[in-house]
Amino acid sequence: MKTVVVRNIARADADVVKRLGALGASTVHEAYGRFGLMKPYIRPVWAGGEAAGTAVTVLAQPGDNWMLHVAVEQCRPGDMLVVGCTTDNTDGMFGDLLATSLMARGVTGLIIDAGCRDVKSLREMGFPVWSKAISAKGTVKATLGAVNVPVVCAGINVRPGDAIVADDDGVVVIRKMDAAEVAIRGEKRQADEEGKRKQLASGVLGLDMYKMREPLAKAGLVYVDEPEAD
Amino acid sequence: MKTVVVRNIARADADVVKRLGALGASTVHEAYGRFGLMKPYIRPVWAGGEAAGTAVTVLAQPGDNWMLHVAVEQCRPGDMLVVGCTTDNTDGMFGDLLATSLMARGVTGLIIDAGCRDVKSLREMGFPVWSKAISAKGTVKATLGAVNVPVVCAGINVRPGDAIVADDDGVVVIRKMDAAEVAIRGEKRQADEEGKRKQLASGVLGLDMYKMREPLAKAGLVYVDEPEAD
Amino acid sequence: MKTVVVRNIARADADVVKRLGALGASTVHEAYGRFGLMKPYIRPVWAGGEAAGTAVTVLAQPGDNWMLHVAVEQCRPGDMLVVGCTTDNTDGMFGDLLATSLMARGVTGLIIDAGCRDVKSLREMGFPVWSKAISAKGTVKATLGAVNVPVVCAGINVRPGDAIVADDDGVVVIRKMDAAEVAIRGEKRQADEEGKRKQLASGVLGLDMYKMREPLAKAGLVYVDEPEAD
Amino acid sequence: MKTVVVRNIARADADVVKRLGALGASTVHEAYGRFGLMKPYIRPVWAGGEAAGTAVTVLAQPGDNWMLHVAVEQCRPGDMLVVGCTTDNTDGMFGDLLATSLMARGVTGLIIDAGCRDVKSLREMGFPVWSKAISAKGTVKATLGAVNVPVVCAGINVRPGDAIVADDDGVVVIRKMDAAEVAIRGEKRQADEEGKRKQLASGVLGLDMYKMREPLAKAGLVYVDEPEAD
Amino acid sequence: MKTVVVRNIARADADVVKRLGALGASTVHEAYGRFGLMKPYIRPVWAGGEAAGTAVTVLAQPGDNWMLHVAVEQCRPGDMLVVGCTTDNTDGMFGDLLATSLMARGVTGLIIDAGCRDVKSLREMGFPVWSKAISAKGTVKATLGAVNVPVVCAGINVRPGDAIVADDDGVVVIRKMDAAEVAIRGEKRQADEEGKRKQLASGVLGLDMYKMREPLAKAGLVYVDEPEAD
Amino acid sequence: MKTVVVRNIARADADVVKRLGALGASTVHEAYGRFGLMKPYIRPVWAGGEAAGTAVTVLAQPGDNWMLHVAVEQCRPGDMLVVGCTTDNTDGMFGDLLATSLMARGVTGLIIDAGCRDVKSLREMGFPVWSKAISAKGTVKATLGAVNVPVVCAGINVRPGDAIVADDDGVVVIRKMDAAEVAIRGEKRQADEEGKRKQLASGVLGLDMYKMREPLAKAGLVYVDEPEAD
Repeated sequence: MKTVVVRNIARADADVVKRLGALGASTVHEAYGRFGLMKPYIRPVWAGGEAAGTAVTVLAQPGDNWMLHVAVEQCRPGDMLVVGCTTDNTDGMFGDLLATSLMARGVTGLIIDAGCRDVKSLREMGFPVWSKAISAKGTVKATLGAVNVPVVCAGINVRPGDAIVADDDGVVVIRKMDAAEVAIRGEKRQADEEGKRKQLASGVLGLDMYKMREPLAKAGLVYVDEPEAD
Repeated sequence: MKTVVVRNIARADADVVKRLGALGASTVHEAYGRFGLMKPYIRPVWAGGEAAGTAVTVLAQPGDNWMLHVAVEQCRPGDMLVVGCTTDNTDGMFGDLLATSLMARGVTGLIIDAGCRDVKSLREMGFPVWSKAISAKGTVKATLGAVNVPVVCAGINVRPGDAIVADDDGVVVIRKMDAAEVAIRGEKRQADEEGKRKQLASGVLGLDMYKMREPLAKAGLVYVDEPEAD
Repeated sequence: MKTVVVRNIARADADVVKRLGALGASTVHEAYGRFGLMKPYIRPVWAGGEAAGTAVTVLAQPGDNWMLHVAVEQCRPGDMLVVGCTTDNTDGMFGDLLATSLMARGVTGLIIDAGCRDVKSLREMGFPVWSKAISAKGTVKATLGAVNVPVVCAGINVRPGDAIVADDDGVVVIRKMDAAEVAIRGEKRQADEEGKRKQLASGVLGLDMYKMREPLAKAGLVYVDEPEAD
Repeated sequence: MKTVVVRNIARADADVVKRLGALGASTVHEAYGRFGLMKPYIRPVWAGGEAAGTAVTVLAQPGDNWMLHVAVEQCRPGDMLVVGCTTDNTDGMFGDLLATSLMARGVTGLIIDAGCRDVKSLREMGFPVWSKAISAKGTVKATLGAVNVPVVCAGINVRPGDAIVADDDGVVVIRKMDAAEVAIRGEKRQADEEGKRKQLASGVLGLDMYKMREPLAKAGLVYVDEPEAD
Repeated sequence: MKTVVVRNIARADADVVKRLGALGASTVHEAYGRFGLMKPYIRPVWAGGEAAGTAVTVLAQPGDNWMLHVAVEQCRPGDMLVVGCTTDNTDGMFGDLLATSLMARGVTGLIIDAGCRDVKSLREMGFPVWSKAISAKGTVKATLGAVNVPVVCAGINVRPGDAIVADDDGVVVIRKMDAAEVAIRGEKRQADEEGKRKQLASGVLGLDMYKMREPLAKAGLVYVDEPEAD
Repeated sequence: MKTVVVRNIARADADVVKRLGALGASTVHEAYGRFGLMKPYIRPVWAGGEAAGTAVTVLAQPGDNWMLHVAVEQCRPGDMLVVGCTTDNTDGMFGDLLATSLMARGVTGLIIDAGCRDVKSLREMGFPVWSKAISAKGTVKATLGAVNVPVVCAGINVRPGDAIVADDDGVVVIRKMDAAEVAIRGEKRQADEEGKRKQLASGVLGLDMYKMREPLAKAGLVYVDEPEAD
């Protein structure tokens, strides 16, 4: 790793990112062909938070949040900070002071493959964070990492400027070049779902609505009336 | 596994199931001799949900929710869907569209030994789910499983028609044949607990109320006044 | 282990403990030189609870809460119960009846390196618990342990009378002899943070406020304007 | 659970079980339609052990091996002991004394959803064990469980008399009624594999041997000669 | 924590430690009333290693092995190094160079609540290590910890000079003051076991040898001849 | 993800890769500035295996090894197969038939972020595999993935043609462009270590050899002769 800060990165289009955020993580993930989802151990530190933004990436050493302070300066309104870590770590590398600084710059949220603290303050401030752990353990500022290089965060390779969508269902990463197309597909998908929801609520079975009966029979599904002997 | 759907299963008595639900998972589990509790990794996707019902069981392939759609048709008012999986998996195999369909049929909740998504919608709809993970990862509809065969879910063998009680403390499975007796024992237990609670709140010690002092002394417990040298 | 109950333990000063509680786990942990934090798998069973107190310690056998009943008698107003376990265990060794008893004695909360149940009641009663798991699994009362001996709980050695501070960020243990000094340092730290928070909120960068630019350059950090070839 | 010992259980045919053992866990699991495999956290305590047998089942309390002593008497030559546990537990519930007793009765191995100890002696005795953990932690003999009732072990429901096949690849459970058919299918499978192995060793590609090229093309697979822009 | 090195610690008696080592971890753990066993995630990095010694303790920062180098000087023949860590960490903080240095000083083994590397060399050198993980990840030498203060290692509080016994079954810690008595009890236990082993090998049942039939009947165990209806 | 197979990828230089392999994972990882190490949950399926090679990458669906068969054709002598998976999975996606095919093409080993089976045969064949799990669970051949696209495997982003070094200490990934420089640095490091090893074996302390006494004193380390009061 070079201990480098890359400035002036290209970012996914801001309007597209907003549209992706309106769709939510599950719909975007489907529309992206079911790729780009971080592992489910990344969870919101307070329930109900939602955010979308363009990634400013940080590669940090375990238990050291020096590069997060460096990264703040590289953030613009509409960005999200995405922090990968060189070793598995649960220390509380992010808290309410850094959140105050990020909010002052218009950052919409933070994803960290490590720990977070000051959870109560973050909830009160309304700053959403997705992390691997919650821990009061503070950090040192001793070793360099990098800002705006590709980082692996919770199993996904994130490039600077990628679009991020995060909510209670998880965190999805969409590459810059794919963002616009995914937004279009997701909106179509969402429109389709509204109609389906109404049908299902009225009692129509998915078996019929999705026309599954024939393929199920072909695949060999058998219905029997008697409970099988156990 | 036979790729079979068993129709018209025998179910635990609906009134008994309601009485079990009123007792809650912890009391029912005690009344059942401390058996039938799913492993504690099964957690509610939103806090405060409570449900009881008769099990319609699904054996699903990892990342494939085809059999959940098949199972909906087999559900009646008062049922709960219980989903086991052939391999450890955290994909979001259940979401708000399936929940809409289940609510339309009077199903009271879902237990899944895999992942769930659309958590925010499920909370707003008031449909309670207990799962192993929360994940936006959607699923395919490609491989058959089975409906209403015995399945292992979170370490417990569930038979179709068994009584299920689930709340913030976990998920308990009571076999059909045992349900009535467990309800009676649980209600007795609950009545006893009310009296105990009042005594304890007034400052009576459990040591005295449960008459523990003599057995403790017999078992060899010693009281010393000085802190032990560390 | 001797199956012993130690009475009349020395406790950290009650006023100091209150001041520590007002600071919260993260600030106290920082002020303590980043020591004394339990592993982050210990989590509150309901969000938002906060407690501070002096430790009454319990060493329990897995799946056996007999010694918790014994420990209640040793508790005074302002104490917290801290339960270590001889083997990894997730059974629900603590519930609302024991909580009723502890509240009647003025105990402020419970930390348990095992499971807890009756979560809904505990939330309604306002009794805060930090545990490793939530489980309806009840326990027997069959084997002796000890009360008020040093116990390891979630990776930290806790001595009777130590100060405990617990909130959404985790659980910190401060030795009796260190409590007063940590309170002073923590209060100074908190006062400093208020000023920093205001500066950061106004848009001052941490890089400038903490004077990091020079040490970062010395450590070799390089800024580049072009995105690196990936 | 009834605290019961069931005597004179029906067992899978001994010759069929030997044939299944000769096939090994992976081939048997394939031949059984990929069902019946215990979760992969169950591992051999010493590498290279292999065993097959008919299940004598034990339901034990955590940290209590009383029922294992009871179960020994129910074992016959060619049996394997399969131990489920009412709670997750890693205590060393099985060691070389019990192994000595089981070997004296012709038992071929043990599967335990908990811990094992005396690993060095077991290796020297040549008695194979598959367990969830290795732990010196001994156990009490205080609470009843059951022998020869259905138990869930590592995610699989095991009935008394079921056939068990275990080796370095894991542990497979085959229901009594299915054992003969699975043996036939597995032997056919094994014969087929020999021919395939020779072809592959000579350099024939699986793509050609399995005739995969056409279905891959139909599914949409594209070959490109240039590395994709990253 | 004070960043201190304590010299000239008192140690458990060397002869007693040798006798404990000859008994092995499981027998010592039983003889110690089933206390002092580290959590089973601590495993030997190569199978078959055995060691006993007096503890020289290290409290290290995650990913920093500076204090291990400091601790070497404090070691005498017959010591074992026991390393606790301030945060969960799997980095390879110990390798063959440090092992060379420890062997030169007569140290018999190492226990580390973090990672180890150079596993192949360690096996060839015959230096036994018990660790939480194996990882090539090297470490820095940047932050102070302490040597010969009490440390928590894998859930057990270890004091300088305590006796350590480690083998394939795990790691047991015996306090200085208890070591002699535990050795005596363990040797008696071992002698008893030899007689039992012979009886069991000859086919005597544990049920009879341990006279369990009466207490089992009293506890309510029932034998039935017919398989229960499943 | 495009369902694409990229042919004729550029590879790290074969001689450089051999030199890296001779150094081993730990030395290479150090020489690479401590980057590129896969998470330590990736372990060899048999101890003592060692391999180095150029990466042919596979992105596979969970429980589906179709793309492994496709990837074989793209392998050349000196390659290693590196398999990432779209969801966490432990199924045995690789076994001895595929290994036979890979050996016929001169492939030196396999890394898979999922399960492996036929462990005994692989050991006998001498084909080294590093995996997340061992599992008899076989797989289907139903869904497309990709070959020779960048994949995340055990937390590391692997590009086609990257150099891989794997042994008992873990798996390190070195980017093509960095391989030559890392080999040079690693060889220098290895030469230095030989001299150090001799000094340490003769009893020279690391404290002196590395000249640590002064920086330790500066950092504030204090030596005391009396054991601290505990």
